[in-house]
Amino acid sequence: MRVLILGGDGYLGWPTSLRFSSRGDEVAVVDNYLRRRSLLERQSDSLTPIRSLAERIQLWQDLTGREIGIHEGDICDADFLEETIRDFRPDAVVHYGEQPSAPFSMIDRQHAVDTQMNNVVGTLNLLFALRDHAPSCHLIKLGTMGEYGTPNIDIEEGFIEISHNGRKDLLPFPKQPGSFYHLSKVHDSHNLMFACRAWELGATDLNQGVVYGIHTPETEQDEGLITRFDYDECFGTVLNRFCVQAVIGHPLTVYGKGGQTRGFLNIRDTLRCVELAADNPPRAGEYRVFNQFTEQFSVCELAEVVAKAATEIGLSVEIESIKDPRVEREEHYYNPKHTRLLDLGLEPHLLSEELIERMLHIIQRYRDRISPESIDPTILWRPPAHARLTS
Amino acid sequence: MRVLILGGDGYLGWPTSLRFSSRGDEVAVVDNYLRRRSLLERQSDSLTPIRSLAERIQLWQDLTGREIGIHEGDICDADFLEETIRDFRPDAVVHYGEQPSAPFSMIDRQHAVDTQMNNVVGTLNLLFALRDHAPSCHLIKLGTMGEYGTPNIDIEEGFIEISHNGRKDLLPFPKQPGSFYHLSKVHDSHNLMFACRAWELGATDLNQGVVYGIHTPETEQDEGLITRFDYDECFGTVLNRFCVQAVIGHPLTVYGKGGQTRGFLNIRDTLRCVELAADNPPRAGEYRVFNQFTEQFSVCELAEVVAKAATEIGLSVEIESIKDPRVEREEHYYNPKHTRLLDLGLEPHLLSEELIERMLHIIQRYRDRISPESIDPTILWRPPAHARLTS
Repeated sequence: MRVLILGGDGYLGWPTSLRFSSRGDEVAVVDNYLRRRSLLERQSDSLTPIRSLAERIQLWQDLTGREIGIHEGDICDADFLEETIRDFRPDAVVHYGEQPSAPFSMIDRQHAVDTQMNNVVGTLNLLFALRDHAPSCHLIKLGTMGEYGTPNIDIEEGFIEISHNGRKDLLPFPKQPGSFYHLSKVHDSHNLMFACRAWELGATDLNQGVVYGIHTPETEQDEGLITRFDYDECFGTVLNRFCVQAVIGHPLTVYGKGGQTRGFLNIRDTLRCVELAADNPPRAGEYRVFNQFTEQFSVCELAEVVAKAATEIGLSVEIESIKDPRVEREEHYYNPKHTRLLDLGLEPHLLSEELIERMLHIIQRYRDRISPESIDPTILWRPPAHARLTS
Repeated sequence: MRVLILGGDGYLGWPTSLRFSSRGDEVAVVDNYLRRRSLLERQSDSLTPIRSLAERIQLWQDLTGREIGIHEGDICDADFLEETIRDFRPDAVVHYGEQPSAPFSMIDRQHAVDTQMNNVVGTLNLLFALRDHAPSCHLIKLGTMGEYGTPNIDIEEGFIEISHNGRKDLLPFPKQPGSFYHLSKVHDSHNLMFACRAWELGATDLNQGVVYGIHTPETEQDEGLITRFDYDECFGTVLNRFCVQAVIGHPLTVYGKGGQTRGFLNIRDTLRCVELAADNPPRAGEYRVFNQFTEQFSVCELAEVVAKAATEIGLSVEIESIKDPRVEREEHYYNPKHTRLLDLGLEPHLLSEELIERMLHIIQRYRDRISPESIDPTILWRPPAHARLTS
């Protein structure tokens, strides 16, 4: 299969590229290095010392004999993307090529606009390029569980049958996203759903939970293949960030009450889910949604499991609650369904103390690279300065 | 009340400005003349010979002694919009300032991207400007009934209580928009809902049906105050277009089976609805949705009532079904609620043959300005050329 990975230089895009390549699929990656530049802007950097994309691809080829193509450019540049699709003729496009941080989108107006423009326009360009040059290509789009928010009912996978006043219909599950980033993903989902209906494209929208972990079987083969690992307030996801805090002796900072509950999955399962989607494509015109996570935890539960594992290996850890910088429910009902990927054969790697201990050991190896000041939240969903000053 | 009208040069924006001005409110309008430029691009023009915005405002002042401020500029220019909000300090902003045509958004990739960028970025800029400079200002945003699509259940006003697996919640009504334009309005709605929740803004989202009619009590006072009236395939709404077709002896073109049913309202009722919203503002943090229409008709029903009225005044009219250029259900259930504006005191001007006859007489006065070739649909939701040519 010919697989094009958008955002192939990223935390998940890079190991996904190696996974498909290792299977013998023909792989090409697209990236404009937005993530590397965003980290520079934030004066932070990946914990892991990642090499350039070209160096990693060369190393992979040296180790395995497998080639991966590179297309450097911005998918918001429609001509570039169209040319890439036309030349590579993908059977599947895996679309990680978006600005992925909620806090980054909440910095100010410019970051909110940039996030929505980058994500929405890139995806629109992709939909048109597929329509015109690869209409039977399977679009595998990374969405987020955060699109749903935290409703007081069970969350279904994309659609819900609603009975109302004696009639019923299967309708898109209502969305209550909690940041301009999450909103951009909701916008994408609506655009995708329409393009599948109007143009008979086939798409899988993977509403992914929070990913944790560093290594995958492919990246483990050589330290030079390691993927990026962010722990800063913008790009660090909560479990990864807790592990870094444990290593440097910083309290694990729980936002508010810590009852915020989310779906989580191991980076190895992310790769497997994307493979399963690719190997089981939708029919033409089908827009389908898989909720992509394996377990759910509250933030407090995560902090406790990290603290326990860290204590096991001799680290001294405290848990500290700080004021929640976000606008979100700190305690709520949460029960999202996630059976569709299991039905396709996903065998989850569940969270364990052993896994956290292994992560802690890897983080310890790079602890000199950690800047503690980039971890604590400074970006507030409700900027204090705005409060009704001028009206 | 200080009322800022975004898109104040448009079909609805202009008479809305006069309405508030006539009440003694302090009114300023913002426009970048995108609509005038889009019509030039389409080689069409308003049926009615509208004067420049400055000329109309001067005429209004000469007639009534009332001043209306003009801010010429693009709300996608954040600095311009911020300065306008800061200087004018509105109590209410009525936001018509968007690209309002579904077919225009479906011309090609560039028009789809331009529509979503123009509408989403303009609205984001507005939300930030209100947050920072007028947080207690009431945002009155024009949405569209088209955001809902045509579900097989009753459509509620913005939110629906869903019971599911023994639990229930009041959630945003699921959206199934049918063009990149309608999608842009759905994106806006989600952005608004979030901004109200995060920043305690108060907003009314008016999900408006299809508007028809030409005159309002204010514009009737002098021919120089007339508002624009579009009848072309992009910007002409269906009833207005049928009336123009009747006048020039063109068959009334029904798309497909003509069972497409939509909510409709008289332009006079649009103005009244916006007034009612402005006079009954939401509380801080409230995002509320009103379905703004007074009656529903199928396209066939409309064609028949126009044909009947036209025959009354001696015109010879045929009805012709043509292949539907859109992707939409040609027959469907449709029962949207619209009680909230009635509860606030709306007294609808219902569609009547007399009203259509008056419209036909006005159109006859300007019939020399009609270009028949701009009416028939050329923009297809499914471009014939794309069909799996290259893959």
